[in-house]
Amino acid sequence: MSQPKVAIIMGSKSDLHIMQDAADVLKELGVEYEITVVSAHRTPDRMFSYARAAADRGIKVIIAGAGGAAHLPGMVASLTHLPVIGVPVKSSNSIDGWDSILSILQMPNGIPVATVALNAAKNAGILAAQILSTADEYLVKNLIDFKEDLKKKVEESAREMEG
Amino acid sequence: MSQPKVAIIMGSKSDLHIMQDAADVLKELGVEYEITVVSAHRTPDRMFSYARAAADRGIKVIIAGAGGAAHLPGMVASLTHLPVIGVPVKSSNSIDGWDSILSILQMPNGIPVATVALNAAKNAGILAAQILSTADEYLVKNLIDFKEDLKKKVEESAREMEG
Amino acid sequence: MSQPKVAIIMGSKSDLHIMQDAADVLKELGVEYEITVVSAHRTPDRMFSYARAAADRGIKVIIAGAGGAAHLPGMVASLTHLPVIGVPVKSSNSIDGWDSILSILQMPNGIPVATVALNAAKNAGILAAQILSTADEYLVKNLIDFKEDLKKKVEESAREMEG
Amino acid sequence: MSQPKVAIIMGSKSDLHIMQDAADVLKELGVEYEITVVSAHRTPDRMFSYARAAADRGIKVIIAGAGGAAHLPGMVASLTHLPVIGVPVKSSNSIDGWDSILSILQMPNGIPVATVALNAAKNAGILAAQILSTADEYLVKNLIDFKEDLKKKVEESAREMEG
Amino acid sequence: MSQPKVAIIMGSKSDLHIMQDAADVLKELGVEYEITVVSAHRTPDRMFSYARAAADRGIKVIIAGAGGAAHLPGMVASLTHLPVIGVPVKSSNSIDGWDSILSILQMPNGIPVATVALNAAKNAGILAAQILSTADEYLVKNLIDFKEDLKKKVEESAREMEG
Amino acid sequence: MSQPKVAIIMGSKSDLHIMQDAADVLKELGVEYEITVVSAHRTPDRMFSYARAAADRGIKVIIAGAGGAAHLPGMVASLTHLPVIGVPVKSSNSIDGWDSILSILQMPNGIPVATVALNAAKNAGILAAQILSTADEYLVKNLIDFKEDLKKKVEESAREMEG
Amino acid sequence: MSQPKVAIIMGSKSDLHIMQDAADVLKELGVEYEITVVSAHRTPDRMFSYARAAADRGIKVIIAGAGGAAHLPGMVASLTHLPVIGVPVKSSNSIDGWDSILSILQMPNGIPVATVALNAAKNAGILAAQILSTADEYLVKNLIDFKEDLKKKVEESAREMEG
Amino acid sequence: MSQPKVAIIMGSKSDLHIMQDAADVLKELGVEYEITVVSAHRTPDRMFSYARAAADRGIKVIIAGAGGAAHLPGMVASLTHLPVIGVPVKSSNSIDGWDSILSILQMPNGIPVATVALNAAKNAGILAAQILSTADEYLVKNLIDFKEDLKKKVEESAREMEG
Repeated sequence: MSQPKVAIIMGSKSDLHIMQDAADVLKELGVEYEITVVSAHRTPDRMFSYARAAADRGIKVIIAGAGGAAHLPGMVASLTHLPVIGVPVKSSNSIDGWDSILSILQMPNGIPVATVALNAAKNAGILAAQILSTADEYLVKNLIDFKEDLKKKVEESAREMEG
Repeated sequence: MSQPKVAIIMGSKSDLHIMQDAADVLKELGVEYEITVVSAHRTPDRMFSYARAAADRGIKVIIAGAGGAAHLPGMVASLTHLPVIGVPVKSSNSIDGWDSILSILQMPNGIPVATVALNAAKNAGILAAQILSTADEYLVKNLIDFKEDLKKKVEESAREMEG
Repeated sequence: MSQPKVAIIMGSKSDLHIMQDAADVLKELGVEYEITVVSAHRTPDRMFSYARAAADRGIKVIIAGAGGAAHLPGMVASLTHLPVIGVPVKSSNSIDGWDSILSILQMPNGIPVATVALNAAKNAGILAAQILSTADEYLVKNLIDFKEDLKKKVEESAREMEG
Repeated sequence: MSQPKVAIIMGSKSDLHIMQDAADVLKELGVEYEITVVSAHRTPDRMFSYARAAADRGIKVIIAGAGGAAHLPGMVASLTHLPVIGVPVKSSNSIDGWDSILSILQMPNGIPVATVALNAAKNAGILAAQILSTADEYLVKNLIDFKEDLKKKVEESAREMEG
Repeated sequence: MSQPKVAIIMGSKSDLHIMQDAADVLKELGVEYEITVVSAHRTPDRMFSYARAAADRGIKVIIAGAGGAAHLPGMVASLTHLPVIGVPVKSSNSIDGWDSILSILQMPNGIPVATVALNAAKNAGILAAQILSTADEYLVKNLIDFKEDLKKKVEESAREMEG
Repeated sequence: MSQPKVAIIMGSKSDLHIMQDAADVLKELGVEYEITVVSAHRTPDRMFSYARAAADRGIKVIIAGAGGAAHLPGMVASLTHLPVIGVPVKSSNSIDGWDSILSILQMPNGIPVATVALNAAKNAGILAAQILSTADEYLVKNLIDFKEDLKKKVEESAREMEG
Repeated sequence: MSQPKVAIIMGSKSDLHIMQDAADVLKELGVEYEITVVSAHRTPDRMFSYARAAADRGIKVIIAGAGGAAHLPGMVASLTHLPVIGVPVKSSNSIDGWDSILSILQMPNGIPVATVALNAAKNAGILAAQILSTADEYLVKNLIDFKEDLKKKVEESAREMEG
Repeated sequence: MSQPKVAIIMGSKSDLHIMQDAADVLKELGVEYEITVVSAHRTPDRMFSYARAAADRGIKVIIAGAGGAAHLPGMVASLTHLPVIGVPVKSSNSIDGWDSILSILQMPNGIPVATVALNAAKNAGILAAQILSTADEYLVKNLIDFKEDLKKKVEESAREMEG
């Protein structure tokens, strides 16, 4: 297995049922990834060293998922120059997901987080592949095929419904 | 000047017009404080060292104000065992303050932030004094006097309005 | 059993399944507490006498949980100089918890309530311990151990996930 | 001047520019009122004695206006059997008025507050008159005339616009 | 059975499981009521004649419950000088109840609706009794007893919890 | 002047600065209209007779604008089989327009209101023309020209910006 | 079967359980329709050609339902001069439906979408029939009968409840 | 001037005062860009051809800003495999920016848009540079310098405030 280019991290292992979608779609698109738990609030030192070391280890994109007052994506973005994709996770006791969304999205000028929809880890994976594809023709082809598949499934649904 | 017991920090100097209220009420209540800028996103190392060192320097309570995706109070709380008071600041481009409030309030289990109302730095200062007063009879007296003053001002308004 | 330093009160016994978390974590941290029902709206006299007497009985911190138009934390704060921690409880017929949060958080200048996340009674308990720890080295040690445990659990999850 | 039947109270004299509308419409409808400041948070004892004594003094309806974490209407309702009308006031630092509205509206079962629209002190006055009119034929006539005036003004606007 | 003084109406029979609480508490408090379905949108003529005739039939207070774009309480208020109490009902496809609340609460100047909490038909019933009690000493006594019962239940809960 | 096919009504003459846009675009598109004030809450009888008579007078589409608890569009829709277009107006004391939007949009099954964006009276006018164009080829041509003009303006902006 | 005049389209076949209501009520009202899947995001070319061709095929009204960031109704409206009715669908991972509603409702000036309530495909169908009825006396009669039926069902409920 | 790698597009020239920030920061970071107006709703054909041709012209990242029912970023993402960054613009008549945010953020699975904060065009520019830097060491250096500058400015503020 070659060096992963995408790191998928999450604030708690309870987020895995959501974040696994990022891993699955990356695999489908042919992108190597690593996946682990890094908590901004419970393991701040681990977050620091993980985020600071990521680029040197060959990571190109970081996907970070978190719920509630979700500080992981933004803090990781503050610690690296790599693009960081944030996945707002609707955790229990979340206020309908608003807390996760706003905590990740509303970053101050200077430190962007590329935020995707609530629980949309799959889109985070696709976005990571799109980012890598800016310098990888093989990935471009995979992404075009992926889009083609989406289209075909809708066309099939349409044929069924039109009877 | 003796060692300050309360640290007032803020994510940006543009928050000072709000956070100054904390300083002013602490002075009024006779509590020493220090005040500075610490940005979670732009100076993460500074935040780490500041938060980690605070207790050993004699700080007893930290007041942290921030706007937007406000990660400073929660990250500081992750880095110290001291009580941390969070002040949601309604910054420009904030979504009516909801982003600051939810980013500060909705902390996960294990890492509390004592959140006060939007822009309510004055209340953060009073709360810090209340915390210190749990072991300081002199401060108890000042807080009781402060409450008495609030009462008198309302009673005066009442007399005026009743004419 | 020695004199409790933390009072846990709630607006209705139906809040106990949430508020018990405060009691449990205080026990874990070695802090004596008392727990009871005090309704701002149904027993206003009881609330008055309870809040007014608390400091003289040796209580140092009050944790108050309530749902809907949650007036208990703020009213107790108006009646004592002690620090009051408010726990917004998501009751049935609540509007997704917004009512409890805003009723507790948005206190006027002069009367702070240290608000924690929706249903986060555990964090209220930890915050109470942090407040007491400002004058109690034994509690400082317990809080540092508690943080250490949080860290270890995340590290264990990380090892599992990294497989 | 005869005994007032309606008491208009507000949490702060800064609410007077809103609450004056209640006084004005009561005067227009021929209802005696009294008006003063009673703060739930800064003068809790005054609130207790005021609310407890109101019925015996001949007050029939209480109009209470407050902003932010607006506890005055609900607490007064807990202290009297009189009908209480709540006016959510959009104060500075309010979160678009949502805090005032939810703090007043979402009262628990057993303790109603008759809530009117944001800043709608005029409607609070009319509602108070409607309540008194259930036993006062003279007021019924005034209210019917008042409605007739509203209608005429619209009809006049219509004629103007239709040109 | 004497002439009812309170009319309970609702926009759909599917609201009955909520609105029944108003009927039950009125019965408990000794107030005669009538209850029926009146839809603003599906039976506008019926709404007109019902609201216009209510006062002459001896009705003193109207309680109107509705969900979604809830126009019944406000339209009835436009058609009568009687006090109208609005109950926002959280119907299916409601947006968490916000639609019902805002449609009922935010009435324009001149036409108040006394709004109670989401689904709080019980409070609507109590409020109707409070309104009638402004001219009925017997009801005053019942309301005071009702409050006393609320208090006793909380005190009992407190004794249990304090163990 | 021929018989108008579109009626523009509004709850208050203060809504005219918004609703005039509907009139202007209808004129531009060559559609006759009438415009007046009809208040659901202050002139319910006028609203009844206006809505009931509209179809017989030759009106084909009704545009109704209102703010706050905006009942006019929905009530008119309940009183006629004509298509009704609702314009949520952001009035003073509105809660950011949410009240108008939800009061107009969230109509129950059976009684639709075609809702347009906040303050979007211009779009209401265009929609009315689109509705009439389903049986009017001349209007189809005007609408296509209108779309063409929109396109040209954007293309011109693009050329300017591309410099 | 004659040429359908109404096209019902939806962004995903998972929306069919909602959108079927539009088809059912159109059938009940005697209006021919066609129904299929057209995804703005997954089949943009299909959406273009479908929307561009609709008018020439004899379609008079398009009903488009979609959830989340719901672009289908607005994009179809940009591609045709036909009236477009938008149905916000509350999909899984939707933020309580707010995303669908705002994405459909808040169209810019020039390109209206006639938005109905959340999940209210039935009302979309009725509205389409109302639009067609502006040039179809037979449909007028059906719509009047439909309204009459709604009324009768409420009257029946009323008789039952009044017992 | 070499071939631009980043395309900045916006729905209306009135968005330029916001979107210019993206251009400015890209210039500062040494990234070539092009900037123009492309309206999803007023120039759908232009949007189609622009988005479809972008990759072949050498564009690597598209930044799209729009307000209200903001369909431009999502539609462009549906038409290209390139990464698309969405900037929610708070336009006039926006509902506090919620409409733009949700229309851009809540994209369905398969079609991500990398969303940044409200009006945060500067962060969109930085994110575009981060994406390009995954295959451009020169840009990495510029981004690291940019972060260093952010840090220095905060440290300077801190020194000033600490006095």
